[in-house]
Amino acid sequence: MSITFYYAPMSTSSITEAVLAELGTPCERVKLDISAGDTRKPDFLKVNPNGRVPAIVHEGTPIWESSAITMYLGEVFGVESKLYPEPGPKRGEAMKWIAWSNVTLAEAAGRLSASLPTSSEGAVQSNSLDWVSPEQRSASAVEKAKADLAVCLRILDSGLEGKSFLLGDYSLVDTHLQGFVGWIGTMEVDLTPFPNVTGWLQRCSERPAIAKLMEAEVENET
Amino acid sequence: MSITFYYAPMSTSSITEAVLAELGTPCERVKLDISAGDTRKPDFLKVNPNGRVPAIVHEGTPIWESSAITMYLGEVFGVESKLYPEPGPKRGEAMKWIAWSNVTLAEAAGRLSASLPTSSEGAVQSNSLDWVSPEQRSASAVEKAKADLAVCLRILDSGLEGKSFLLGDYSLVDTHLQGFVGWIGTMEVDLTPFPNVTGWLQRCSERPAIAKLMEAEVENET
Repeated sequence: MSITFYYAPMSTSSITEAVLAELGTPCERVKLDISAGDTRKPDFLKVNPNGRVPAIVHEGTPIWESSAITMYLGEVFGVESKLYPEPGPKRGEAMKWIAWSNVTLAEAAGRLSASLPTSSEGAVQSNSLDWVSPEQRSASAVEKAKADLAVCLRILDSGLEGKSFLLGDYSLVDTHLQGFVGWIGTMEVDLTPFPNVTGWLQRCSERPAIAKLMEAEVENET
Repeated sequence: MSITFYYAPMSTSSITEAVLAELGTPCERVKLDISAGDTRKPDFLKVNPNGRVPAIVHEGTPIWESSAITMYLGEVFGVESKLYPEPGPKRGEAMKWIAWSNVTLAEAAGRLSASLPTSSEGAVQSNSLDWVSPEQRSASAVEKAKADLAVCLRILDSGLEGKSFLLGDYSLVDTHLQGFVGWIGTMEVDLTPFPNVTGWLQRCSERPAIAKLMEAEVENET
């Protein structure tokens, strides 16, 4: 049973935080300070050699990559409570949206975040390899990233057409994606052309587990 | 049971091709020509609104993102043949490596591919949004991408230490990753500092299903 959860505030680990909160799975929490170099220390590199959060250790096995963690926690702890689909095509649909958010959506969002001036809103503690040179922080890179994000948001909006949540009923797919989309909404991205997305974000924020986390985040910031 | 597999030669769909070949799962194959615009046609956008291959449809449900597809096919068709772990921590390990290859490894590799002059070896039919402006094809971007890839390859090398394959015995994790690493090896990346990786690549290429696909690829190129 034992889970250890390695996290840092205001990072991608917030997604795993929300997933664990929805599942109500008890875990030992290890808080790391990215700017103090905690994620580069030998003890943590033994857990995740990439030096990134989130990471979990379950029954002695380290698991990294937030998309893998959500799918794993879902299938181990979420099926009975109907937060994650049983094996079969519906689970495939869950996996497709979760993988998409970390590969396709996050690529465009990460590019926007990296292209914006560092003082902009939406800046998070960057986990990733810092690969954007100053000359790449150009207006054209910002515009391109925004256009690509709009394509992604349109896909998400269509995926939500006629539904309250991505798989119909609320699931960890929503928990996972709302974290990314909420972050995108803090950057210079207008979500109003995507009414299914904004309505869905609102419904997600009303989930008690997520509302509680959001409150805690606001308290930490003030 | 029915699977439809949408693919394009010399693209990320080669990974799904190898996974299906290992599993021996019969499927209807739909070949798309990316440069002729097949992936942007309305019929395919109904399957994958991202306009990218690979995509599969299983029992009427479209599934995109090669990482999600490998995990999905693994859990549905690969457990009995021991090509994919049963539910539990070992499956979490499988998911972690597969997600890592599409998020972390592919990000660095995609950046190198995009930064190299377009005539270079290693160029594949690009599925993705073409976001690299000419001024970004700089020598410094190439060097940075190579350095980041070396970090990834070192992590993979350590993951293979003392083992024939990533989970011990051969699994779809190896099928999935060898596709990425084989592609990386066709770019200006020296794999010799990573002997566990080169030995593993060699062992993977000896798998009958993969050897057969490689032969077919060589025939297509000549």
